[in-house]
Amino acid sequence: MFSKAFITSFALIIHQRQRGFVKARKYATFVGAALPFFGKTSSKSKIDITKYMSSPVTPIDELTAHPNDMKTKMELMILRVQAEFCKALEKEETDSYKFIVDKWERNEGGGGITCVLQDGKVFEKAGVNISVVTGHLPPSAVSQMRSRGKQLSEGKLPFFAAGISAVIHPRNPMVPTIHFNYRYFEVQDGKNTQWWFGGGTDLTPYYLNNEDAVHFHKTLRIACDKHNKTYYPKFKKWCDDYFNIPHRGERRGVGGIFFDDLDTPNQEEVFGFVTECADAVIPSYIPLVEQHKNEAYTEAERQWQLLRRGRYVEFNLIYDRGTKFGLYTPGARFESILMSLPLHARWEYMHQPNEDSREGQLLQVLRNPKDWV
Amino acid sequence: MFSKAFITSFALIIHQRQRGFVKARKYATFVGAALPFFGKTSSKSKIDITKYMSSPVTPIDELTAHPNDMKTKMELMILRVQAEFCKALEKEETDSYKFIVDKWERNEGGGGITCVLQDGKVFEKAGVNISVVTGHLPPSAVSQMRSRGKQLSEGKLPFFAAGISAVIHPRNPMVPTIHFNYRYFEVQDGKNTQWWFGGGTDLTPYYLNNEDAVHFHKTLRIACDKHNKTYYPKFKKWCDDYFNIPHRGERRGVGGIFFDDLDTPNQEEVFGFVTECADAVIPSYIPLVEQHKNEAYTEAERQWQLLRRGRYVEFNLIYDRGTKFGLYTPGARFESILMSLPLHARWEYMHQPNEDSREGQLLQVLRNPKDWV
Repeated sequence: MFSKAFITSFALIIHQRQRGFVKARKYATFVGAALPFFGKTSSKSKIDITKYMSSPVTPIDELTAHPNDMKTKMELMILRVQAEFCKALEKEETDSYKFIVDKWERNEGGGGITCVLQDGKVFEKAGVNISVVTGHLPPSAVSQMRSRGKQLSEGKLPFFAAGISAVIHPRNPMVPTIHFNYRYFEVQDGKNTQWWFGGGTDLTPYYLNNEDAVHFHKTLRIACDKHNKTYYPKFKKWCDDYFNIPHRGERRGVGGIFFDDLDTPNQEEVFGFVTECADAVIPSYIPLVEQHKNEAYTEAERQWQLLRRGRYVEFNLIYDRGTKFGLYTPGARFESILMSLPLHARWEYMHQPNEDSREGQLLQVLRNPKDWV
Repeated sequence: MFSKAFITSFALIIHQRQRGFVKARKYATFVGAALPFFGKTSSKSKIDITKYMSSPVTPIDELTAHPNDMKTKMELMILRVQAEFCKALEKEETDSYKFIVDKWERNEGGGGITCVLQDGKVFEKAGVNISVVTGHLPPSAVSQMRSRGKQLSEGKLPFFAAGISAVIHPRNPMVPTIHFNYRYFEVQDGKNTQWWFGGGTDLTPYYLNNEDAVHFHKTLRIACDKHNKTYYPKFKKWCDDYFNIPHRGERRGVGGIFFDDLDTPNQEEVFGFVTECADAVIPSYIPLVEQHKNEAYTEAERQWQLLRRGRYVEFNLIYDRGTKFGLYTPGARFESILMSLPLHARWEYMHQPNEDSREGQLLQVLRNPKDWV
């Protein structure tokens, strides 16, 4: 019943008690510029934390003591990608809007850094989240993993999960929404450590622009092809299948890639692939923002965008396994989970655009996913 | 895993193939006034269909042949309440906005009448739905009912379900949202028919007005007390427990009543009680609309209302059993199911109103349900 993707998501759903959160929360409106609280490079370490949106979740000493541990490498990679992506987005925004940085701790172990830019000129809502969490998988989660093929003992097992996830909802309906998520998962079973990676990047346009969709998919395909020629076609289909709204017979958007449970040929190679995918986010998306953010649009086009955002909410709240499972977890940090929801959404009864309209053309593609490259 | 409420809801989720829908659909913008398509009282029957928003779902001849059958009585009751409520709402609206009437058929048996008023001056979205459906419960549903205590044979069993459900989202944040749903359910097991009723009415204010909440609960309590003094306290608590958003630790609103599986002391008496509750909707709610619909409000108050509407969407899409189960049913008529969603909703990251503000005062009541009468 629960897939491995499900269990992976579970670990990434960053939960904590409210008290712990309040204690750990920091707001720094212009963090990108000065990092006043943690701006200095630690003289003990080679880790330059000024590059990040906040100091790492794991203590610096622990990271520097284990530089070759995949847990360290993954945390530093997602810290870097988070900062690079936030800065690339800020460059597209007007000067008065910057990401706020919310660092939080989780009672059971680990924590996260949530970066949010809300109600900007270019971005209506942009959330870029990382989390690095440790703890024990409950027996039910372990038994689900076993039923999915993992060779694990029964009972509570220690786990580690680190991931980055982002959803960017621009204001202009001509700029698509992007979502991506890359994650690393480890379970300890006695002396044996099992690990895997998962993730994906997908695009949700409001008005279909063929060149955009082709550029986006081409960028992802190039990243995939560098590692394995079978990845792009396989992960493209997986993405179309996952981001599906069955009750409407529509996909959420024009797809991208989606994968889980990747553990071959070896840890270094899969990490290289996941890093490649995460690094492909900026070149796949920022040019689309640049190109369309100042395009004129009508009030009717804005209303259509809000209607499509309603569909986005439907997918996330009804079907997305991470969201659902996260919210059902007691003490879930729901603000980070629900950061993916748009600032505004709209539902109209029986809205049916003409087939020949630009809205109707988008629907045709959402009903019948295309091969873009 | 599935409660009886769940199974009951299942039957009310009016599903059909798209083709059947298109065939049966009728738009009549000013139906209330003239009923041009079915305006004449059938000379064969005593049923005056001009009182309703549309002709009944069940053929008139069938209804007139079995006037004492609870299926007939329930259908006529919900047809009447639908029309009365729609007309009462139209009276509060400006003249240019009327309910549109959508009559649809269901392939397996039965159908429904969906009445929607959208983007009005007073009502942003008002949906009043009835459905009368027949068919066979799948063995899984029957076995769920058995596990909940129903004495039923295994296998597919014929069922009948009739219900009314409505959600009214007004434009002015000083006017609360109301939801109600009353339903009758029959399962045929050989020569034995099992039946029960369920339903409830609940209120979701954006700004708490004590007199409103007291008036609303008092009206429901009077309706309950006429039938059984234990009903109101029991069903009030059931309502608080059901309309809960666990991840936020908040109730959806100030509650009302909620019950299911009511089958004692006898069919006539329970029908009388359910009719009493359905008839209490107008006096419980319309005075609140009348009183507040022209009150002044600020843009900030409007934004708070939209934020609370986001919470309404969260409850309906994540927790409401009828919505979830309905949408997972292949061929579900999702437009009727999702009619409950507001025209607009908003999500802000980490929105925390001051405890002393009017917004904060509402939250305190949503976190700790009060006894209103």
